[in-house]
Formats: sequence, C-alpha cells, structure tokens
Amino acid sequence: MSWIDDPAFAPDAPFGPQTLPYGVVSGAEGTAPAVRVGDHALPLRSIAGSFPQRLRDVVVCESLDPLLAAGRPVWAQLRERISELVTAASAPAGAELLPLPEVTVELPFTVGDYVDFYSSRHHAENVSAILRPDAAGLAPNWTHLPVGYHGRAGTVRVSGTVVTRPCGQLAEGEFGPTARLDVEAEVGFVCGGPVRSRVAADEVADHVFGAVLLNDWSARDIQAWEYRPLGPLLSKSFATSVSGWVTPLDALDAARITPPAAEQELVAYLRAEQPWGLQLDLELRCNGTLLSRPPFALMGWTPAQQLAHLTVNGATVRPGDLFASGTVSGPQRHHRGCFLELTWGGGEPVTLDDGAQRTFCEDGDTVVITATAPGAGGSVVGLAEVAGTVGPAPC
Amino acid sequence: MSWIDDPAFAPDAPFGPQTLPYGVVSGAEGTAPAVRVGDHALPLRSIAGSFPQRLRDVVVCESLDPLLAAGRPVWAQLRERISELVTAASAPAGAELLPLPEVTVELPFTVGDYVDFYSSRHHAENVSAILRPDAAGLAPNWTHLPVGYHGRAGTVRVSGTVVTRPCGQLAEGEFGPTARLDVEAEVGFVCGGPVRSRVAADEVADHVFGAVLLNDWSARDIQAWEYRPLGPLLSKSFATSVSGWVTPLDALDAARITPPAAEQELVAYLRAEQPWGLQLDLELRCNGTLLSRPPFALMGWTPAQQLAHLTVNGATVRPGDLFASGTVSGPQRHHRGCFLELTWGGGEPVTLDDGAQRTFCEDGDTVVITATAPGAGGSVVGLAEVAGTVGPAPC
Repeated sequence: MSWIDDPAFAPDAPFGPQTLPYGVVSGAEGTAPAVRVGDHALPLRSIAGSFPQRLRDVVVCESLDPLLAAGRPVWAQLRERISELVTAASAPAGAELLPLPEVTVELPFTVGDYVDFYSSRHHAENVSAILRPDAAGLAPNWTHLPVGYHGRAGTVRVSGTVVTRPCGQLAEGEFGPTARLDVEAEVGFVCGGPVRSRVAADEVADHVFGAVLLNDWSARDIQAWEYRPLGPLLSKSFATSVSGWVTPLDALDAARITPPAAEQELVAYLRAEQPWGLQLDLELRCNGTLLSRPPFALMGWTPAQQLAHLTVNGATVRPGDLFASGTVSGPQRHHRGCFLELTWGGGEPVTLDDGAQRTFCEDGDTVVITATAPGAGGSVVGLAEVAGTVGPAPC
Repeated sequence: MSWIDDPAFAPDAPFGPQTLPYGVVSGAEGTAPAVRVGDHALPLRSIAGSFPQRLRDVVVCESLDPLLAAGRPVWAQLRERISELVTAASAPAGAELLPLPEVTVELPFTVGDYVDFYSSRHHAENVSAILRPDAAGLAPNWTHLPVGYHGRAGTVRVSGTVVTRPCGQLAEGEFGPTARLDVEAEVGFVCGGPVRSRVAADEVADHVFGAVLLNDWSARDIQAWEYRPLGPLLSKSFATSVSGWVTPLDALDAARITPPAAEQELVAYLRAEQPWGLQLDLELRCNGTLLSRPPFALMGWTPAQQLAHLTVNGATVRPGDLFASGTVSGPQRHHRGCFLELTWGGGEPVTLDDGAQRTFCEDGDTVVITATAPGAGGSVVGLAEVAGTVGPAPC
C-alpha cells in the first residue's frame, strides 16, 4: 500500500501508478517539473535527493525541456525510479504532495515545430464530402502518405487557457468574429532525444517522449476562404490546446495494436515491423454533454509512420517538436471528433443535455477532451484532459 | 575618415556605415553578436565598454535573441551608438576587427515560428499557369489577403550551409531523390519586441527588427504530389536558407515606397497609412551566372500587411518569429525568382555562362541571392547574400 493516500492513485484508477504522466506546476514554492499521482502533483525536485546526478539534472529545473533532450535511457531510468518511490510504503524524505486544485499546471515544454496530420480516413472523407461536395472523396495522395501541415508553435496553450474567438476574413470582403468556431479532438506526440533526420518508423520510441490530448481549434469560415492553395493558416493559428500532463510512451505499451491495413503496398519508409497503432478511446464533451467517442485505433496512419514521414526528406526533429494525429473520427456519427462532422457542416445541430442546441461553439462553451487506454495487468491508463473555454471576440 | 581601414566600408559601398547589419560570428574568441563593417565583423562585446547597461546586456551574449526581445527603443539606441563608434576617427579601446574569411557566421537568432507568404502576383500567376494549366489564374482570395503557410522553423539554416537533395515520394508509389530541386528568391523579416497580437500595419516597425534574404528551397515533384488539400510540407521542410547578417529595418528607410495599388478596397486591418513597399533589387545566381533580377517593389503585399494579417486573429508574434515574402517575381522573364518559372516548368532550360543547361538544380550547384536597396543620401544598402550548395541525396 503506497504512502500516497489518494483513492485516485489506486492501481485501478486512471491516474494510478501505471500512468505517472509528467507536467510542470507552479505553486508557493515556484515552478517545477512534477509527476501526477492521482489528484496530486508530486514535484520531482522534492524526491530527487536520492537520484543519480543525471536524473537530478533533468528534474531540478523549470520545464520538461532537459528531460525531453535527455533521451530514452534517461526516460526509462527516471520512470523506474519514480515508480519505486511512489509505490513504496513510506514517503521519501522531503516529498511534497500538492493537491491539483492548489497548483497551476503550466505548458510543460517549449514547443519547437508543430505539425498537424490528417490521418483519420473517416474525418478526411467526411470533410471532403461536407466542404467539397462536387468533388468528394479522398485526395489521391491520402492512402500513400500521411498528409499534414505545419501549425503555429507559438500559440500552443496549456489546458485551461481561455480561447478567444478569432476575428478574420470570413469570405470575400467580410471581416468579423468567426461564426463557425470548431474543435478537433486529436492526440499529440511530444518529441525528444537527439536531433535526428530520417528516423525509421521502428525507431519512434527513441524520439517520442509521450502523448498529450490536443484540441486543434479551427475557424471553419476563415479556413474555407483562406486555404487555397497553401493550406490553413489563420483558421488554426490563434490557439491549439494541449493537456498539461504528458503521458510517457512507456505507459501506453499495453495499448499498442496493429493499425488498420494499408490499402496497397506502402513505400518502404512507411512500413514498420512493430505495431504502432494505439487503442486510445477519446471522449469529446461540450458543457458536460458527451458529444462523441472518437476511436484512435482506427487511425489510418500511426505516430511511427508520421515521424518517419516528417523526417524522410532530411528534415530534423528536435526535442520539443510536437506532431498531432489530426481529428480522430470513426465510421459512426458518435465517433466524430469535431462539430463540422457532428453537425454535417452546421446543418444538423446537436442537442446538449440542458436542451441547448449547437452547430459550432458559442461564447462561454467549455470543451473537454479526455481519453483512456488499456494499461498493464488489466489496468486503465488515463490521458490528462485538455479543456478550453471560449472567450468573446475582441472585434 | 573612419578608423576602419576597409574600402568595402566606404560610404558608397553596400556595406558602408549606412548599412551596419547584425550577425553572430564564431572565431578564436568564441561566439558573439557582431556588426558587419565592409568585409569585416566587429564583435559588439569588444566595443561595449562604453555602452550603457541596457545596451551591454543585449550584446554580451551568444546570439541576437536578447537584442530582438529588447524592442525598438533599444534597437534605435544601439544603432546610433554603433554608428558613432564606427565612423569615428580613432578606434574605441579594445575593438576587434575580424576579416570575414576568418570567422564562421552563425545562424544569428533562434527561429520561433516561420511563415512563408505568396505575395508576388506574377509568381502566383505563373505557378498557377504552370502547375494547374486547366484552371490557371489567381485563387479568388489572393487579391483580398496575403496567402501564406507555416514552414519548418527547425530547418532554417544560415547562408553557406550545404543543402542535401531531399528524398521523398515524387508521385504515386515512387520514392527517390527529387528530380526537381528548386530555389525561391525571397526576403525574410525577423520579428522582435514585446509579444503581441493584433499588430496594426502601421506598427510594423515596432515588431520587425530587420530583413534577411531567404532561399525557400523546394522539391517541386514532392510538392505536386503532397500538397492537396493542406499545402506544402516535405517539399519545403528540408531546408530554408537565410543571410547570416540581418539588415536593420532602419537601414531601409530610404527604400520605402508606395506599393502597387490594391485592386479593390481592402478590409481595414490591411490598410496602412505609411508606405511599406520596399525598393529592393534582388539578383539570383547559379554557379556565378546571373539568372534574374527579381523586383521586390512589385510585391502585391507588404511586410506591414503580412504581419497585420498574421496577428489579426489573436495569434501572437514573438521575438525570433520569421516571415518571408514568397518568391519575388515580376512581369518579365528576367524577373523570375525560381527555376520553375524561369524554365516554365522545366520545359525551357536556362543556359549558364559555361554553356551548361539547367532546368532545376544539379548536385554541386551553388545558388546565391543578393540584393541592394537605396540608402540615405544616394548611398546603396547591401543585403547580405544567402548562398547554398546542393549536396547529393543520401538515398
């Protein structure tokens, strides 16, 4: 029985000892990397007294940046050491246990480059049918490579940050607050380890530290007007929200599955020996109402393929780079990860539990994405929520 | 007569006292911010003895990052102080003057987000005609907003860095080295000052520190296959080259001109009171042969409009963010800023001075972009070259 007296840290709870995500918290004692144990944050500097120097170096600081840079052997060693300490019968000397409501959870790392993919086939097909009904269907490249684009790293915000409704050009000559503010339920992957190019798909675990949930806020009217021919820019760049806690890739070992089969032989660099699909079950809520349960297991491209693709041209990946899956959607209506699909372009409103209807987000709406994954020994691993409330436009 | 005995520092030379671009050089004494005086680098720490503390703080360091963050009042004060010192009759105590061949010029700042625009009408029209002959012409949004996309900040490289030919998917099922490696002659703008959103067009000088020349290397075959519907990714992300010396915006005062008139009334945030067109005359060379003279004065969108657009949706701009003009082209063949246009999609090779023909870059080719602008009192301001040599593909 652990010294941590928190029912949310029980082995059958989503943030029990099988999970141990990393974040950065601010409180009376300053800002520090921490591990989440149930509904508490355990600042790592408070248990680092017994750590070997190379572990102490990456936790006595103010962000996860040194840990991300340290690479996989350090990640494994640190997780093992923390696991021992938090499951011990008595507390290590000096350990501080901070209830989550008493700390501020910060954006835990410096975002390098941010790339957003488009890897749910159901999402891509639905968007095409909604936005380009005359030419519906996947682009011919979709089944051959993970389509994606660079997003704005400087506006990645931690869960809980208010998302101000953006203003912009909504159509020819029309300027104002977006009338079609949408969310996209996604999973993001946080890179670490040595700077590298041409990462093989099967090397992904050496270059991905962990996963976050991600909301790729999108202004659909701005997007439809701006995106030809170079893709989305202002329709996405105002904010991208991520979980404050990064789930280590090692915590998702039991969630690894074989992804859906490719439709044809893939080019060599996109073929992996190991299974890198992930059984992550997302839930998307607006003001408490469950809107959908997007199934990550059905994604057409895995994070291993995405990272291999990103670097096959010689582009480097560095610690802090972030890449995301694209909206997670599935074949059923209750699998759809954004309002655009759920309301089929705004034509079929959804009804919230309080009777209110929504086509897109209204000011004051709070959107929350959560997820769970199978853990070792029948346990459940929780991915920390990403939440955001819509603030009114300034224009 | 200045104490700096370098004919390239004469008032009628492009890197004379009217220019004074900033860079970062490494030599026997370590890595330090410097100002370029003719064909020499003057490390700023070597003349900082007489500086007030707030100027010393931004130059006694290893990059231009603190200077970029310091903001316009500091930029103006530093330029004035340096100008006095380099035009004085005798050298300040301790001043080190390093011949450029004896130093390594580093990437001078940490690139935040990198956005590339598409603001030459002639380029956009030519590309459309070459790549989409069935549907040629500008997209309807082009005359209403500066179209752009995020590029990869982590692969921005300083002038002189070898650019390895990228491998990738060239078409359905086809993988290999790009056969259509292109260049794009552009001007980049380096941001600084306080983190801000909704920057007004007329505030651009408070948030742009200076200009660089930029080569947006592009793999046209990879681009054509990957870009639908989210824009270019791997066709651009392998490398973007920039000048090692950043020309302060203040050095371009005499180059400011009224840009070409918009075709229709623009939305308010894109209207500027002050003229932010720039009379920059670029030259694009391959292996010493002058390929073209792209005229920046004809660009359809100014840096002031680009920055206003980038931030109108609430997105923040931070020190180190970089945005570029897009390929600079004009109405004549000798104005075209990339091989795609110069050779009309590869169908009309150009002949180099040695008789060799090119449709796109070959291994070993060295591409150099230079530019000049009118300076104060009839002088000429040089923008430091951006050069790159193509290395063979690893695949």
